[in-house]
Amino acid sequence: MKYCSACGHPVDLKVPDNDDRERFTCTQCNLIHYSNPKIIVGCLPVFKDRVLLCKRAIEPRYGKWTLPAGFMENNETTSQGAERETWEEARARVSGLSLYYLFDVPGISQVYLFYLCSLVDGHYGVGPESLETALFAESEIPWDELAFPVVAETLRSYFEDTKAGNGYPMRVDTVVRKPRGA
Amino acid sequence: MKYCSACGHPVDLKVPDNDDRERFTCTQCNLIHYSNPKIIVGCLPVFKDRVLLCKRAIEPRYGKWTLPAGFMENNETTSQGAERETWEEARARVSGLSLYYLFDVPGISQVYLFYLCSLVDGHYGVGPESLETALFAESEIPWDELAFPVVAETLRSYFEDTKAGNGYPMRVDTVVRKPRGA
Repeated sequence: MKYCSACGHPVDLKVPDNDDRERFTCTQCNLIHYSNPKIIVGCLPVFKDRVLLCKRAIEPRYGKWTLPAGFMENNETTSQGAERETWEEARARVSGLSLYYLFDVPGISQVYLFYLCSLVDGHYGVGPESLETALFAESEIPWDELAFPVVAETLRSYFEDTKAGNGYPMRVDTVVRKPRGA
Repeated sequence: MKYCSACGHPVDLKVPDNDDRERFTCTQCNLIHYSNPKIIVGCLPVFKDRVLLCKRAIEPRYGKWTLPAGFMENNETTSQGAERETWEEARARVSGLSLYYLFDVPGISQVYLFYLCSLVDGHYGVGPESLETALFAESEIPWDELAFPVVAETLRSYFEDTKAGNGYPMRVDTVVRKPRGA
């Protein structure tokens, strides 16, 4: 950020009065511009003993497999966002959404929310951000070709919980992201 | 938003290519400026049979009682943010944080996350954003003087769950905000 989005004058990075961290502040109109974490909402759609994954047609992680998920939009609920992303990426309708996983990813200021749900009628397609989509049983999951650690952890937990047979308690976890090149 | 925060030129509201909703887009450098929901993180600190509330010293809802909560900051986890806000508003340390409530408030593009936790040693004070802070048993809660519907709902659920004696299952709910003046 270099310019004030309200008046177009340059901003400075400084600690405002009664605050304790640096914010971009307009040198002309004094407006303080806050930056906050973003929410990624997604689904774990299940049909019989299989889960729906999407092969990414976009960067980052082009060609890797992921759960349908994306940035939450204004004026929707977290579950509406998860449903929307599932339609956009996999042309799939889901039902019975139950919050299953919250991942904090503080290194990149993101919070992931995954809803466990049923894939309606087992129908799905391919949205514009996917190369292909498919249902996978546990033994078929492309573990080495998953796009993100949160996807692997959500899938591992789901198959563990299924075997344990005690339902799907909501989980909270933190992902410590390795620095680039590590 | 009137000006591009990267180059200072005017922005237009338009639907970018391969998108389906309007975004502020720079007329000069073409940068797309996304706006996304914000996360409010907070605690429900418990000591024996009482809960810790703060009387707000700031608008909105100046003088009303609330749970310690505020906007999540970049580079922290949701629970770290909840702990930070509890220190800032009530000078209280908490332990044993367990995610208890997610509220979607789509009308104002906010997601609230409340962690149930223990107030360490029963100690608390008054931070700069509070007029006073106090511990309340259920019969002492100022129900008509609570700042926000999410606070009332979290407290009601907590006392219900305590009486039921089956633990504190995580809850998800949506707050439909009345239009101003309604």
